[in-house]
Amino acid sequence: MSAFNISFIGAGNVAEALSARIISAGHNILSVASRSGASAAVLAAATGAEWRRDLSVPDNCDILVLAVTDSSVSEVASAVTVPDHTVIVHTAGSVPLSALMRTSRAGVFYPLQTFTKGFIPDLSKVPFFVEATDESTLKVLKELGNQLGAGAWDCDSERRRYLHVAAVFTNNFSNFMMTTGEAIASGAGFDPELMRPLIEETARKALHAGPSAAQTGPAVRHDTRVIKSHLELLSFSPEYQKMYRIISRMIIDFYKEKGR
Amino acid sequence: MSAFNISFIGAGNVAEALSARIISAGHNILSVASRSGASAAVLAAATGAEWRRDLSVPDNCDILVLAVTDSSVSEVASAVTVPDHTVIVHTAGSVPLSALMRTSRAGVFYPLQTFTKGFIPDLSKVPFFVEATDESTLKVLKELGNQLGAGAWDCDSERRRYLHVAAVFTNNFSNFMMTTGEAIASGAGFDPELMRPLIEETARKALHAGPSAAQTGPAVRHDTRVIKSHLELLSFSPEYQKMYRIISRMIIDFYKEKGR
Repeated sequence: MSAFNISFIGAGNVAEALSARIISAGHNILSVASRSGASAAVLAAATGAEWRRDLSVPDNCDILVLAVTDSSVSEVASAVTVPDHTVIVHTAGSVPLSALMRTSRAGVFYPLQTFTKGFIPDLSKVPFFVEATDESTLKVLKELGNQLGAGAWDCDSERRRYLHVAAVFTNNFSNFMMTTGEAIASGAGFDPELMRPLIEETARKALHAGPSAAQTGPAVRHDTRVIKSHLELLSFSPEYQKMYRIISRMIIDFYKEKGR
Repeated sequence: MSAFNISFIGAGNVAEALSARIISAGHNILSVASRSGASAAVLAAATGAEWRRDLSVPDNCDILVLAVTDSSVSEVASAVTVPDHTVIVHTAGSVPLSALMRTSRAGVFYPLQTFTKGFIPDLSKVPFFVEATDESTLKVLKELGNQLGAGAWDCDSERRRYLHVAAVFTNNFSNFMMTTGEAIASGAGFDPELMRPLIEETARKALHAGPSAAQTGPAVRHDTRVIKSHLELLSFSPEYQKMYRIISRMIIDFYKEKGR
C-alpha cells in the first residue's frame, strides 16, 4: 500500500471524520485550509498538518479533498490552485463531478453516512461511492475507499443523486419521525427519553431483518380503527395529522403491492 | 419479592416476549390459551405451562394477561372466566382500561416497545405504563413493571393514547422512512444493504444526543437548492414527492420555532 499525501479544503464535520480515518489508515494529512480560517487552524493542529491561509496546497499533495458544503463546491473548485499531478475530489452527494470543471485528475469521493461535528462515525463500516474523470484517478479513489471504508462502489453523478435522496429518507426523515414521537410524548407530559429504548429496538430490528420486513403498526396490519383514533387525537396539529395520514397511506400501499 | 402465578390469553409476539422475561424474573407461567389453539400449544410447551383449550385459568392464577390484538381485547375480556381474586390486564396501547368492563382487579400493563415474532426485545430496558381500577391492583402492576422492565409509570387511558401515537412515529414511521430509502436506492440499482451503516449511525446519534439535536440534511439547513433538486428527481413517484415535501416543510418549521 502506498501512503497518500492528502490536503483538505473545508474543516467541518466531514473533514473531521475523514481526516481522522485517513491518519489511522496510515496516510498523511499535509495541509488544511478553509474560507473561515479558524476551523482550519483547529483541524490542522489536531491532525499535525500545515494550516494554509489561502486555497493552495503543498507541491507534494496527491489528493486534495474539498470537504465543503454542497452549494460551495463549484465556487471553491474554481478558486483553488494545485499542481498538475494533484487529484481534486469533492465529497458531496448532490453535486455532479462536472462542478469541479476539470477534464482530468478530478473525482467524487462520497461517503454514504451522516456527519455531525464532534460525533465521529466509524468510517470503516461506510461504503464510499466514487467517480472520476479518468481511469487512473478512479483507481486511486477506489484504493482509498477500500482502505478507509467498507469498500468503494462505482457511481456516476446521476445515480449518486438517487443515493443522496435515499439517504435523506433513511437518515434525515427517519430521525425526524423520532423527533416527532418525542415531541408528542413530551406534549402529553412524558419524559421524551422514555422513547429511547424504542429507538434502539427500531434500529436493531431494521438492521437484523431489513426495515421492510421489520415493519409493524396499525398501517401495515390495516387497523383502520386505530388509524382513525390516532388521526382524531392529532387534531391539535393539522401538520401531524397530514403527516400521519400520508405515511400511513404509503405503508398500506407499499405492503399491498408486496402482498403482505 | 413474591413470585406471581401468571396466565396468558394470546400467544403472539407480545406474549412470547413477556412470558420469557416473566420466567427469567422468577415468576411462573401457569397456563396459555388462545382462540386459535396452535400458537398457545407452542408457547405453553416453550414455557412449561398448561395449554388451556378454553378461555379459563387455573384457580391459583394471580394475574391473567390478555396479550391479544388491540381490536380483540374487549371481546376476549367478556369471554374469559377467572376466579374473583385474579387480576386481569391487557397490554394494548390504544385500548382504554374500560374495555375490560370491570370495576376492580383490572388494569393495563403496556410495554412501550415494538414486538415481532421470533425477535425478542430486551424487556429489562423497556418502560411499562400502568393503570388499574384500584390501588392494590396498581401496586401489583407497578411491582411487576419494576421487576420485568426499566420501571413502571402511571399512565391513564387518555395519556396512553398519546404515547401510542408517539410510538407510531418513533418506530413505525421512522422504519418506513428507512424502507423508502432502501427502495429508492434499490430502484437506482444499488444493493439496499449499502444503506445499513447509515441506519446504524442514525440510531447511534439519536440515542446519544436525542433525535432533535441529531437532525442533519437539506431541510434543517434550509438548502432549498438541494430540496428542489430532490423533488425534481422524485417526479417518478408523486407519493414520494408528496412525502418528501411535507416532511421537509415540517422539519423547516420545527427548527424555525426552535431558532436553529
